[in-house]
Amino acid sequence: MFKIVKKSKISKARVGKLKMKHGEIETPFFMSIATRGAVKSLTIDELKQIDVPIILSNTYHLMVRPGLEKIKKFKGVHGLIGWNGPILTDSGGYQIFSLSKLLKINDKGVEFCIPESGNKIFLTPEKALEFQKQIGSDICMVLDECPEYTKNKKRVEQAVNRTTLWAERSFNLMKKWGKGKPLIFPIVQGGVFNNLREKSLNQLMGIEGDTKGKTRWDGIAIGGVSVGEPFSEALKILKFLSDKLPENKPHYLMGVGYPEQIIQSVKQGIDMFDCVIPTRHARHGDLFAFKNGLKYETIQIGKAKYSTDFTPLDKKCSCNTCKNYSKAYLHHLYKSGEFLYQRLATIHNLKFYIDLMAKIKEEIKKGKI
Amino acid sequence: MFKIVKKSKISKARVGKLKMKHGEIETPFFMSIATRGAVKSLTIDELKQIDVPIILSNTYHLMVRPGLEKIKKFKGVHGLIGWNGPILTDSGGYQIFSLSKLLKINDKGVEFCIPESGNKIFLTPEKALEFQKQIGSDICMVLDECPEYTKNKKRVEQAVNRTTLWAERSFNLMKKWGKGKPLIFPIVQGGVFNNLREKSLNQLMGIEGDTKGKTRWDGIAIGGVSVGEPFSEALKILKFLSDKLPENKPHYLMGVGYPEQIIQSVKQGIDMFDCVIPTRHARHGDLFAFKNGLKYETIQIGKAKYSTDFTPLDKKCSCNTCKNYSKAYLHHLYKSGEFLYQRLATIHNLKFYIDLMAKIKEEIKKGKI
Repeated sequence: MFKIVKKSKISKARVGKLKMKHGEIETPFFMSIATRGAVKSLTIDELKQIDVPIILSNTYHLMVRPGLEKIKKFKGVHGLIGWNGPILTDSGGYQIFSLSKLLKINDKGVEFCIPESGNKIFLTPEKALEFQKQIGSDICMVLDECPEYTKNKKRVEQAVNRTTLWAERSFNLMKKWGKGKPLIFPIVQGGVFNNLREKSLNQLMGIEGDTKGKTRWDGIAIGGVSVGEPFSEALKILKFLSDKLPENKPHYLMGVGYPEQIIQSVKQGIDMFDCVIPTRHARHGDLFAFKNGLKYETIQIGKAKYSTDFTPLDKKCSCNTCKNYSKAYLHHLYKSGEFLYQRLATIHNLKFYIDLMAKIKEEIKKGKI
Repeated sequence: MFKIVKKSKISKARVGKLKMKHGEIETPFFMSIATRGAVKSLTIDELKQIDVPIILSNTYHLMVRPGLEKIKKFKGVHGLIGWNGPILTDSGGYQIFSLSKLLKINDKGVEFCIPESGNKIFLTPEKALEFQKQIGSDICMVLDECPEYTKNKKRVEQAVNRTTLWAERSFNLMKKWGKGKPLIFPIVQGGVFNNLREKSLNQLMGIEGDTKGKTRWDGIAIGGVSVGEPFSEALKILKFLSDKLPENKPHYLMGVGYPEQIIQSVKQGIDMFDCVIPTRHARHGDLFAFKNGLKYETIQIGKAKYSTDFTPLDKKCSCNTCKNYSKAYLHHLYKSGEFLYQRLATIHNLKFYIDLMAKIKEEIKKGKI
């Protein structure tokens, strides 16, 4: 399913190919987030225009609305979204701990309350995986316990142990699924503690496999980052973990990050990314533009100087925003609170991330990263 | 500039052609509203796809932001919006009286304060017209005093008199403009009082012209409707005024309305419409769909029954929403609060209005309206 096609000689970076039910794509890649069955304000045609290779959808949100039975009627999450490329679904763990009212958590599973509806849901690792499989996800994530950023080692260790336990049960379920099953990734926890990270990784890989890559998992994710810690701490953990990760499996760093953080992480062997930064920054008026090579600037479109700047955000960018609209018009729409701004800004920032990944792959192939 | 090509034998309805600097279009037509330099969430390409013939932009909003000097740098309102078809600009009167903090009004003009910035603006009828001309509007509206819906006849009469005075000064300015000047329409006021409406119309037409169509104005607008009165009252006024309007000039009924109100108004000889209903209703989950002929239904997309309705809003509709998306998906996006909903809903409702006008013209040509 995963094949490395180029390894860097100066870093741990690599270019690979990941084959999924809905297509094979080159790594490292960035996943655009379709929280509730749509990528913020954009149509599928627009995603295709900017070469989005894969999207990430949130299990928690899909469980809440429209729910499993409705999604089945849509012929799965692909039918719901109208997207025929690969989709990764998260396990729901992160959102359960950050968005819901947590009622009860124990080794069996987690009970939580949806604030919007008052509905109670009891989720087990088996249910989380079944849900993802039934909605037709290409890559399913194992349910994990994802604590907030904390120095409380006991709390983190407890989460590591439960994450392992849940991964074991997920693995047992996965074994029963035949050919054509989705790819399944467990998630390493352990917060900012090296030895807990190592313990978590070893335990996950030790479930019928080892850390040398003989595991039957389809990939490995590093979770519990981007939960409030400074990136320097996440990077320290990543550097510590990077040569312990199974080499011939794809490595997914969850929720990261700024362009420079992505580049640093690629150098540590990370192959997959997702992040709200391009869309959230777009909404808040921060637009990315390349200067030269991988160097870029952040254009704060609300600044007065852009009100008469009739050049595009990035002359070399091929997105529809840059092809058709000036900074001056974007400034006007932004300051006027016009809806159209959100669309044009989101398209451009996502395209910037797509182009960033293309440039990174190019640099790895050229031996420069 | 305006030519009637077909007159109904069973009503006052007519089909005409109105020639403007940026194109000739058939009447009766509906204008989509681009309040602040964009039609709610849509790009110009999308407007063209649904055959929008003309858009209306709000002088008040454009004065506030980006302002005259900036618009000149955009090469006019067409350059700002990126639209090369006709644009009508309102006079700003309605918004001054409804949105701004009114500081002072007398025969000279009106002083108001922009709530967002605290800036004071003193607007005269000459300035309002100059502004519209300088930004390159195809049809400019004369500054009027537009009172709210009231039974206070004295208040309304005062507004009528001032509107006439301002129209006289506007006419004097217009006379100085040479060939290639934009079309200019004065606005009839008079509230729900027949004799004040008649007085207002006669006074406006009496400015170097008469009510038999010899006026040098390019058209006539009926304002002070859709300001809170029931439509039945507006229709009564319209029926009273309709055979007094200059026949060979286009008649514009401002701010109206629902599809059935548009049909009723067309029967009274109205040629031009604008209204927030298609876009506002779209936002609030009310979507229009034709049943047969001019009959239509309002689909409340939030209703549970649409959650598994995989048919389009209107099978015969050619808009991208109907071609690509089901009611079930729209329901999901609407209930999820997804941005994409707004776009898809706005496109469809505007297309419905465009199709409505096409059907109306067809019916007039066939002698059925």
